[in-house]
Amino acid sequence: MQMYEDGLQRRNANYTPLTPVDFLVRASEVYGDKTAVLYGQVKRTWRQTFERCVRLSHALVQMGIQRGDTVAVMLPNIPEMVEAHFGIPMAGAVLNALNTRLGAEDILYMLSHGEARVLVIDTEYAAVAQAVAEALPDLKIIKIQDAFAVADDNVLAWARSYEDLIAQGDPNFPYQLPLDEWDAIALNYTSGTTGNPKGVVYSHRGAHLTATSNVLEWDMEKHPIYLWTLPMFHCNGWCFPWTIAARAGINVCIRRIDAKVIFDLIREHRVTHYSGAPIVHSILANAPDEWRAGIAHRVKATVAGAAPSSTVLAHMEAIGFELTHVYGLTEVYGPAAVCAVQDAWATLSQQERAVLNARQGVRFHL
Amino acid sequence: MQMYEDGLQRRNANYTPLTPVDFLVRASEVYGDKTAVLYGQVKRTWRQTFERCVRLSHALVQMGIQRGDTVAVMLPNIPEMVEAHFGIPMAGAVLNALNTRLGAEDILYMLSHGEARVLVIDTEYAAVAQAVAEALPDLKIIKIQDAFAVADDNVLAWARSYEDLIAQGDPNFPYQLPLDEWDAIALNYTSGTTGNPKGVVYSHRGAHLTATSNVLEWDMEKHPIYLWTLPMFHCNGWCFPWTIAARAGINVCIRRIDAKVIFDLIREHRVTHYSGAPIVHSILANAPDEWRAGIAHRVKATVAGAAPSSTVLAHMEAIGFELTHVYGLTEVYGPAAVCAVQDAWATLSQQERAVLNARQGVRFHL
Repeated sequence: MQMYEDGLQRRNANYTPLTPVDFLVRASEVYGDKTAVLYGQVKRTWRQTFERCVRLSHALVQMGIQRGDTVAVMLPNIPEMVEAHFGIPMAGAVLNALNTRLGAEDILYMLSHGEARVLVIDTEYAAVAQAVAEALPDLKIIKIQDAFAVADDNVLAWARSYEDLIAQGDPNFPYQLPLDEWDAIALNYTSGTTGNPKGVVYSHRGAHLTATSNVLEWDMEKHPIYLWTLPMFHCNGWCFPWTIAARAGINVCIRRIDAKVIFDLIREHRVTHYSGAPIVHSILANAPDEWRAGIAHRVKATVAGAAPSSTVLAHMEAIGFELTHVYGLTEVYGPAAVCAVQDAWATLSQQERAVLNARQGVRFHL
Repeated sequence: MQMYEDGLQRRNANYTPLTPVDFLVRASEVYGDKTAVLYGQVKRTWRQTFERCVRLSHALVQMGIQRGDTVAVMLPNIPEMVEAHFGIPMAGAVLNALNTRLGAEDILYMLSHGEARVLVIDTEYAAVAQAVAEALPDLKIIKIQDAFAVADDNVLAWARSYEDLIAQGDPNFPYQLPLDEWDAIALNYTSGTTGNPKGVVYSHRGAHLTATSNVLEWDMEKHPIYLWTLPMFHCNGWCFPWTIAARAGINVCIRRIDAKVIFDLIREHRVTHYSGAPIVHSILANAPDEWRAGIAHRVKATVAGAAPSSTVLAHMEAIGFELTHVYGLTEVYGPAAVCAVQDAWATLSQQERAVLNARQGVRFHL
């Protein structure tokens, strides 16, 4: 049954590109009333989040953004950062999430190299925004004035306001889906250890598959409550903004890492999952016991990067947090290898298990 | 950041086609010692199952099977049917699973139309095999003599034995992966309500995505224990042979539907999941209470096709079986729409919930 001569001709008009944008569309369609984002007094459903993303995409197109253009963001883990992961691609554009710890020189290099046409920036990074505005006069700058930012309300008075753009955007705008699933959805820069940072381009297809693999490796049921301890600017938060939409879960946003705040949010919102570098878990493992009081539910966490110490692993297990060790890099959308726990480990001591759990071992499902 | 002119040129040498064959490879690599198949006295691990599939692919190539050839099977839900879903594609061939309820005339139509080069058939269908051998002398026939088949050992004495082929196959054979993810993995015939049955071709990509969607819609954790009450010949068992490999779960095989046997297997193996038409669930809902004695764990089931009666749904809920209603068709790899349970239903009566649970509602994650 030789049906085709050339594989590339097999796609027909019904071919639907894989894209994580569809996760948002479906979450809004199927679970529209469920909570999508929690942050301070902000609580929005998936339907509301979808609408804001459509408005954002329209606003960007109105500003002249065309398919394939780069839109950069420099934001902490606030609700607008979740929106950027959908609204920017829905304008046909490529999301370039910038490391909020970098100074103006590095940021300027990335904005220039990535040919960004728009920068969405939190007022806390006003100094960078000012430097960028002077060096790149053609770049359009949108400011986000977050209630918990340290900057006062008058900084970047000259910049457009994100909320104004959202208010002006058309909620019925025919947002863009990729023409091809290999189209770029994101541009991420490496840390530049060996010279200038390198730009890594993520495709809609790759983002879709990695987001789904996160669910599979973590046995993540529908409607997880995910705490954003991992920066979304880092490999797009390992694709978790898209994963949480795929599961119609809750993004519990958090502006900066603070052990007491983390435990308070875990308790208040019954957080089920979070991710982080070893240092995040160390901070939690070493926090005073009373901060953890009242948290009895199971919390699943992933740790990536250097192997966490067996002490930290043992400590997390002792407080009922289930830690999975993963490893990855910018070039592969975040985690790509995982420590797959084996049945035989159940009979080992906690110390022996911790040593085994500190290995990543095997490739992800993809 | 316009990076490409033409989407089709973006795949590079590193492009890895999506294929469910990789689920078997990974299950063998990562969870090689875990049980893959249970059937009477037969118990095989994922490593053993992988090896048998490699041997099968080699045996088929030795018989002259080439990339794109059709290999038909007419088998009940026995371990060899699971192997067929991997070993045949691993020979580069297309699996044509035939409805075991059909007679020689229909089977001959499908074998001719699908240009099958090999037929693997259970000795219970010896009459069909004889008719096929006479009508299609060039078709190579492989028999499976299952311990629980009603046929005696001497039927089809002239046909090659499946176990002999497995024994002769090379476990180190370099099995085939698809050259392109749109390559065919399976050929399934519709029931032919409006004329001759229509052949529906499944791609490796579609099978991969549907198998994964099954996990997502069902919140199926790793290592499920899946009872094969759904015929694998029917839309490739809704792609569940591939789903169970993706989860490194256990295929609990069963030769024919019998309510007492089903409850015994659920109890003995602590089955976590099964699927079936409404009639299967009706049989279970109406079985004597004592058959269910000793089953206290949660069992998740999917029901497809016509909406199950609210009586059956209420009855299943009462015995602790969690029923999800799905709908699909051959052309879309099995289920494509699902009843997505909404939070607000929790406050309704069992009767009201049953009415809502009988609707399929919304599209699958894909």
